[in-house]
Amino acid sequence: MSFTRKHTLALSACVMALTGTIGSGTASANDELIQLSKDPSQWVIPSGNYSSQRYTTLTQINTKTAKNLRPVWTFSTGVLRGHEGGPLVVGNVMYLSAPYPNTVFALDLNDSGKILWKYEPRQDPNVIPVMCCDTVNRGVAYGEGMIFLHQADTTLVALDAKTGKVAWSVKDDDPTKGATGTSAPLVVKDKVLVGVSGGEFGVQGHMTAYNIKDGSQAWRAYSVGPDDQIKFDPEHTMSMGEPVGKDSSLKTWQGDQWKIGGGATWGWISYDPALNLVYYGSGNPSTWNPTQRPGDNKWSMTVFARDADTGVAKWVYQMTPHDQWDYDGINEMILADVPVHGKMTKALVHFDRNGFAYVLDRTDGKLLEANKYDPAVNWATHVDLKTGRPEVVSQYAPGDQGADHNTKGVCPAALGSKDEQPAAYSPVTHMFYVPTNHVCMDYEPFKVSYTAGQPYVGATLSMFPPEGQSNLGNFIAYDVNQGKIVWSDPETFSAWGGALATAGGVAFYGTLDGYLKGVDEKTGALLYKFKTPSGIIGNVNTFEHDGKQYLPVLPGVGGWAGIGMAAGLSEDTAGLGAVGAYKQLSNYTQLGGVLTVFGLSN
Amino acid sequence: MSFTRKHTLALSACVMALTGTIGSGTASANDELIQLSKDPSQWVIPSGNYSSQRYTTLTQINTKTAKNLRPVWTFSTGVLRGHEGGPLVVGNVMYLSAPYPNTVFALDLNDSGKILWKYEPRQDPNVIPVMCCDTVNRGVAYGEGMIFLHQADTTLVALDAKTGKVAWSVKDDDPTKGATGTSAPLVVKDKVLVGVSGGEFGVQGHMTAYNIKDGSQAWRAYSVGPDDQIKFDPEHTMSMGEPVGKDSSLKTWQGDQWKIGGGATWGWISYDPALNLVYYGSGNPSTWNPTQRPGDNKWSMTVFARDADTGVAKWVYQMTPHDQWDYDGINEMILADVPVHGKMTKALVHFDRNGFAYVLDRTDGKLLEANKYDPAVNWATHVDLKTGRPEVVSQYAPGDQGADHNTKGVCPAALGSKDEQPAAYSPVTHMFYVPTNHVCMDYEPFKVSYTAGQPYVGATLSMFPPEGQSNLGNFIAYDVNQGKIVWSDPETFSAWGGALATAGGVAFYGTLDGYLKGVDEKTGALLYKFKTPSGIIGNVNTFEHDGKQYLPVLPGVGGWAGIGMAAGLSEDTAGLGAVGAYKQLSNYTQLGGVLTVFGLSN
Repeated sequence: MSFTRKHTLALSACVMALTGTIGSGTASANDELIQLSKDPSQWVIPSGNYSSQRYTTLTQINTKTAKNLRPVWTFSTGVLRGHEGGPLVVGNVMYLSAPYPNTVFALDLNDSGKILWKYEPRQDPNVIPVMCCDTVNRGVAYGEGMIFLHQADTTLVALDAKTGKVAWSVKDDDPTKGATGTSAPLVVKDKVLVGVSGGEFGVQGHMTAYNIKDGSQAWRAYSVGPDDQIKFDPEHTMSMGEPVGKDSSLKTWQGDQWKIGGGATWGWISYDPALNLVYYGSGNPSTWNPTQRPGDNKWSMTVFARDADTGVAKWVYQMTPHDQWDYDGINEMILADVPVHGKMTKALVHFDRNGFAYVLDRTDGKLLEANKYDPAVNWATHVDLKTGRPEVVSQYAPGDQGADHNTKGVCPAALGSKDEQPAAYSPVTHMFYVPTNHVCMDYEPFKVSYTAGQPYVGATLSMFPPEGQSNLGNFIAYDVNQGKIVWSDPETFSAWGGALATAGGVAFYGTLDGYLKGVDEKTGALLYKFKTPSGIIGNVNTFEHDGKQYLPVLPGVGGWAGIGMAAGLSEDTAGLGAVGAYKQLSNYTQLGGVLTVFGLSN
Repeated sequence: MSFTRKHTLALSACVMALTGTIGSGTASANDELIQLSKDPSQWVIPSGNYSSQRYTTLTQINTKTAKNLRPVWTFSTGVLRGHEGGPLVVGNVMYLSAPYPNTVFALDLNDSGKILWKYEPRQDPNVIPVMCCDTVNRGVAYGEGMIFLHQADTTLVALDAKTGKVAWSVKDDDPTKGATGTSAPLVVKDKVLVGVSGGEFGVQGHMTAYNIKDGSQAWRAYSVGPDDQIKFDPEHTMSMGEPVGKDSSLKTWQGDQWKIGGGATWGWISYDPALNLVYYGSGNPSTWNPTQRPGDNKWSMTVFARDADTGVAKWVYQMTPHDQWDYDGINEMILADVPVHGKMTKALVHFDRNGFAYVLDRTDGKLLEANKYDPAVNWATHVDLKTGRPEVVSQYAPGDQGADHNTKGVCPAALGSKDEQPAAYSPVTHMFYVPTNHVCMDYEPFKVSYTAGQPYVGATLSMFPPEGQSNLGNFIAYDVNQGKIVWSDPETFSAWGGALATAGGVAFYGTLDGYLKGVDEKTGALLYKFKTPSGIIGNVNTFEHDGKQYLPVLPGVGGWAGIGMAAGLSEDTAGLGAVGAYKQLSNYTQLGGVLTVFGLSN
């Protein structure tokens, strides 16, 4: 039929026209990416740039103009479950991935997001039940003219950015054993890095670097296990100013437990090109029942700084030794040169799920600061800056209370004072803009046996807001120089969308009940809000096209907080406790993944 | 948990606050509705008013301001399949229904569409495979403080408009025999009228009136069958100026075939309070294989005018006797006092699926005009205004060509020059604004046996654009005074969204590839377009709130044209031929039901 042929030809012509806009030179991906990431009109790295600052120098959208924002085009992904992450913008093309089945769309910015190509992976649907906290996907990566997708079944696929054709694919791990893919990869030099999910199924977490050229493995570093597996140099890998020594992980586990020890790596990855170090965090030790796994369970709950070429750890810092609360340490590591106690510092700033905002010297891992960024936090009084260990409050420590005891009123809840929703940093205000949760829990461990591919959770949770309060979240400005919250805007439900800081002085974020909000970075005053089609657990990114600044936002309620809606659960303790806390959410918003691109009125 | 209770209380308070805005007086629903429908700030009847003109006297959105339109809030229904119809607005509340499972939402216009209540029916999912052309629902009706939902399983439910609580429910027909509910009910006086779908399953179509008070049946009138079942008075029910006489339907069927004879009634219903007549059309005779059912198959493919109180037919007009193309006659009947050949006429204007625009005197059913509104139409040369019969072109008549012959190049295709997407009429320009399809077909009948609840189609179809053309639709302005198209805007895909005419001089409609468009009613010049999240098969309605005019639009691709995407079909002849015609659609838009409310920039 001539119609079909004509349209196919038209499509090819469009793709051809784009060729010039996508780099395909001979320089290494790192050079090209570093160059592209300096262009504020593009968004070429999942977190905006390698520092994960989620900051733009674009200023058209600012404190004066924010009130004129409105959607300019919209795009339904055709998938209902939770949409985390956000799109890339490379040249005139936007790249967006959806939750399972993880369709990737290349959308034409010259034509209101018309589909240039799409890639629809075929995956075994049996992966769905082994995804603990919804079938999310946090976005694709770009490098060397390719788009990298991390599928739910852990397959890493390289797609030609111009055509969507598969260049290569490699299976990162085994979903039949509970390993799944949810995180955005990161391209560093000639490698693409990818973590793994599955801490609730007893995976042995790892970060793996694949060669961009052919998908062959360059290095793999586990979070827990023998030194060679975790790529530690006992004498040179440092922690709290000391070499970690031999078997630093093995010594903290009973017997072979490390083999199913967790420490998944499903968060955002950062990179410092000057230091050639990649930074990321590891998640909870498996099982959630602390009485079953004595010891510090190293290096779960840990900040890692690894050599980008070899994977060898330069330094590590364990935030929550012997976790008793599922306080995964996977949240993003924001790299910023920022004053800390008055002294300009090459800092790594990390708002951990455990409720503490950690500031480390990213060159050597020295711990500079660890303060609560939600006053509700009660599981520890403080972190000892000398030892790096939290002072745990026994009353709120399920492990201390013994097996089968229901420990009540622990704050924060397992889903953390902040989960994966990334914070932003403005080098102008020197402040961090943090979307937070404000939720507590009852935590009751129970004995669980390991069976490959079966949940290995071992705790029953209920979640609820802190006593006497009703807001389940806050959007805060945090100053690491003084180590304190500067302002805090309460949210009925959590602020579960990734934030954006701007040179225009407006911080943007999305709320679980579906509002995009823009607030004054200095005061927190609300400058703009819009009710998007669905609750927002995705990010606010930004780009410029034809001289105009835009904000692509990714609504689509779900994720851990919205798992009740996404998976149709109803019991209060279902969804690892989230269903109870967010029970009212379905009276505010419904499922639906709709990329909504905001721009200014003419 | 205190949180839950607090929110429940807050919600109750909101609902209480709305009480004053929803009429609950003692006047009959008809009086209240007629009164409310005169208030242009509300949209209390599915088609805007009883005349189905889809016209508003509101003028804030006009030819000068249309360019300043932008979405002001959005709402995902949480359902992916096709969204037809549109919301009601009564007071400060919007009422919206979704495709199967047919959740009804009451949304607070004072709070960006916050959910006041929702009603989630429980239905046997086995109804899904007996819905021929997607699991659509064309909206709810309002009357006497109640919201009426016509569920997929044919249940008619009355809900308290303030609380969403079920007042009563009644089963209209039997989905296990292929009868389903897709249409919007209409409240007339103290009754609620509802039609039935299932012409592809051999239902005996009927229009039924239920008493608002308790859901008891007031009257039921079949489309085909004995006089008492079809509520014909042989001596007073008129057709083409003559009494129909005894057994007017039975005489046109072979044996008992009328019992599975179709004539479904799934379109929009109109009402003339002065004449006390309700108007609607009946669909195809069953089966689609014309060689299996000799005769005119009356009163399939017919315009009905029935007494609202008794259901007795005042007059009828059969447009397509002995249908050989599935040209269902269910499209809306627009009631307008309009010049026809220079003479002001109490007209009923109907753009039929068969490609002819019919103009009748709605008082007595006299046929005044029947002209093609798409030049591609080739199945008939013209309609004889004396006999009312089309002059069929044998070459394009599958029945004439004999059983098992593949009749090629028939225009329009079965889905019609226009399907259920309603047209609009402006009493200012005296023009009709018609969203059309521009599709032809090959039609190959095959012998089929009737089995209750199984498809009873009997034809294989392929669909494609008219030869040498690529646009699959046009949005046209049609003048019944001259009986011709005034202007025609081509659409790559069909204009499958219901239109709105405005006193501001802008006609609005939605396209299958997802654009809301506003065009100058006089010239067709494009004044505004916006790429909504998904292809539009729903309607553009309008309302005013707090002194501002809004346009709620209902994207959500699917329906017959989008059934390939909605049901995941891929073969060209699947979806009764639609898959082939709209093959490229999934390269332009994805599934997703997102009410998008447009307003003007400040």
